[in-house]
Amino acid sequence: MNTPFQTENLAFAQKCFDDIREMSKDVKGVSRQGYSKLETEVLDYFKKIGQELNLEISTDKAGCVWMTLPGKNRELPALVSGSHADSVPQGGNFDGLAGIVASLTVARWMRQIGYQPERDYTVLMMRMEESSWFGKCYVGSLGMTGQLTAQDLALKHRTSGKTLAETIRECGVNPDELTTGKPVIDLDKMAAFIELHIEQGPTLDSSKTRVGAVTGIRGNVRHKTIRCVGETAHSGAVDKQFRHDAVLAFAELAYKMDKNWDKWLKKGHDLVFTIGVVHTSATSAIAVVPGEVSFCVDIRSLSQETLDGFHALLLKEAAKIAKARGVTFEFDDLIVSKPLAIHKGLRKHLVKAAELANIPARELPSGAGHDTVVFGNLGIPAAMIFVANQDGSHNPNEKMKIEDFMQGAEVLWKAVETFPAKGMK
Amino acid sequence: MNTPFQTENLAFAQKCFDDIREMSKDVKGVSRQGYSKLETEVLDYFKKIGQELNLEISTDKAGCVWMTLPGKNRELPALVSGSHADSVPQGGNFDGLAGIVASLTVARWMRQIGYQPERDYTVLMMRMEESSWFGKCYVGSLGMTGQLTAQDLALKHRTSGKTLAETIRECGVNPDELTTGKPVIDLDKMAAFIELHIEQGPTLDSSKTRVGAVTGIRGNVRHKTIRCVGETAHSGAVDKQFRHDAVLAFAELAYKMDKNWDKWLKKGHDLVFTIGVVHTSATSAIAVVPGEVSFCVDIRSLSQETLDGFHALLLKEAAKIAKARGVTFEFDDLIVSKPLAIHKGLRKHLVKAAELANIPARELPSGAGHDTVVFGNLGIPAAMIFVANQDGSHNPNEKMKIEDFMQGAEVLWKAVETFPAKGMK
Repeated sequence: MNTPFQTENLAFAQKCFDDIREMSKDVKGVSRQGYSKLETEVLDYFKKIGQELNLEISTDKAGCVWMTLPGKNRELPALVSGSHADSVPQGGNFDGLAGIVASLTVARWMRQIGYQPERDYTVLMMRMEESSWFGKCYVGSLGMTGQLTAQDLALKHRTSGKTLAETIRECGVNPDELTTGKPVIDLDKMAAFIELHIEQGPTLDSSKTRVGAVTGIRGNVRHKTIRCVGETAHSGAVDKQFRHDAVLAFAELAYKMDKNWDKWLKKGHDLVFTIGVVHTSATSAIAVVPGEVSFCVDIRSLSQETLDGFHALLLKEAAKIAKARGVTFEFDDLIVSKPLAIHKGLRKHLVKAAELANIPARELPSGAGHDTVVFGNLGIPAAMIFVANQDGSHNPNEKMKIEDFMQGAEVLWKAVETFPAKGMK
Repeated sequence: MNTPFQTENLAFAQKCFDDIREMSKDVKGVSRQGYSKLETEVLDYFKKIGQELNLEISTDKAGCVWMTLPGKNRELPALVSGSHADSVPQGGNFDGLAGIVASLTVARWMRQIGYQPERDYTVLMMRMEESSWFGKCYVGSLGMTGQLTAQDLALKHRTSGKTLAETIRECGVNPDELTTGKPVIDLDKMAAFIELHIEQGPTLDSSKTRVGAVTGIRGNVRHKTIRCVGETAHSGAVDKQFRHDAVLAFAELAYKMDKNWDKWLKKGHDLVFTIGVVHTSATSAIAVVPGEVSFCVDIRSLSQETLDGFHALLLKEAAKIAKARGVTFEFDDLIVSKPLAIHKGLRKHLVKAAELANIPARELPSGAGHDTVVFGNLGIPAAMIFVANQDGSHNPNEKMKIEDFMQGAEVLWKAVETFPAKGMK
């Protein structure tokens, strides 16, 4: 399949990916922290292309960038497409970036073929979707919709300890304007939001179908830091009955939750459970019974009920182990991101667009969270296009075939081209 | 009980403990790293007292300090008593230091009462007994007996990464002379070695008897770093069956070994098992399935058979878990310290000495390892006096009552005074 759209745009897309990878290379993979100087430079790179395409460019009060190709009827709300510019530490290049490049490629194609859409078409580049740095996801999209909280802004950077508020402020953005509960953008001017993204899982890549329309997005409940506190002691001189070993208490909790996870999967729940970070204290040593261990927990599901239930089970198991072992588990505040049932009409529109473009597509859920959730939960018709990718994501080995990407981008183009004049309800 | 020995020496001993605590205070507790500038300063502090007591002072090629009160018959091998000057990071003040202060107090007492022993009496101050900094214990005593290895010298400092060889060299000691297999001291000149030490466990402190004679010393087998390597992945997008989660694999291993430990204790084995340090990699994050976790293992027992058996079980469980979960466990070289059955004659001599001093004493095993093991395993009659202490050890809360210490020191004095002219066989 070599459609004109794919043939004409492949080199452009490839260059975008290569240039940004070069800008954000780390020891392994790429590291583009949200609300960092580097993320700003990435936005600037694309703004330059937007200028060349004669798009109307503005930056909202959350620091996110909107680049609009004016439609025939400027009274109509815009069809918006985009994704986030940041990555996890030492992550892959395509997570987020693919959606920005796809939406920009569609704008470029319109200019190339001299096409003016009925309504405005806007490329949206968002900041800090990834939670790896501060433990909070969707910071850019939540900020622009006024949904950040003072608690969020007080979150500390995983290594530097700098607060999220300070970090945002250093990008010239006033974080206090993002916690008012009121959007800093005009949501009525968004007819719909479509985000193209790599799948980040193995489903599409293990089939011949390279493109998908997302049916739902997993939400998550998280603790950034849970401290298990026991009692340090000499590792040789203190017998088992006198010990309050924090690491063995942690291990029992992790093991029990792993077994519970198996049980819940068997019962048919949609559920993933991750303890991504574990550290004993700085003074822990080989000859000392560990008195403290800190770890995080990330629980995700398409169902809010499952999220709440599994989190309650975590607290229950921890309490049981604490009592039996004479340790305490100190849980920090719960960070919650709701799951989203994707807009049915827009999702069907994407499937139809793939058919029109003659590109095989399937429907599948999204395990990862996305900015799409934020818009969807505010009642804006929001949907996602997935592109097959290799070796997962959130790791330096993440890969994506440019041919698969071009198929996904063409589905986006077809969805934009055939977007109903009356909008989506 | 206020014997003249205790009454006359209490203030001296107390001042020694207070001064050294002041010199080595950390944020919490004390930190006296072996072969550090601070440890040298501690040795210098006691050398000054030794000079005032007119002792013959020499430093061996391992950097350990010998302070001798000459006996009547200088042809006889010396009765040696002492301990180590170092501590664990943010540990207690008395672990090691008590043995140095006790042996010096005995020399001081001899001078005070004008007593000259039959044979030389030597205060031995050793360096780096603690393994917390480099993962290797008894470095000073193994060094002076030529038993360090090139592998030991290549061990790296837990935080700075500096090698043990470099660290030793910075104290003006040539580490290469300590790995020849030949002692750098004359072992024939040691008639016996007695080490006074705090118990570091709750046995004595939970009884009215404040002093003990040690029956045996636990040996240990250790891995400083075991790496469990799985595969990083997106914490939301990758379902359970596709994961190779290093932390959950580690947790299963720790949990299974904890359960095995219970079983072995029920079967009557002497055994303790500790995972003191656990860290996921520097790039681990809340939204990433952990691809790597590192941890250490410390197994201790009075029985070499138990040590070997439980270590073999660890490898077996790890292999099983690795296969089931698609992860690997990479074990670094095993570090081994043999257990020691204490010299029967010298141990009975200590019990007798307590009786003569009218101080209640009991016999008990040592859970912790001590330099005594090194001398005992070389065939030198070696034994230990334990003193009750509070709140364990290897932690900043470690405590010891000076009255209990004075009882232990008097048992040492009585053991020195009544040491048989013909020596121990």
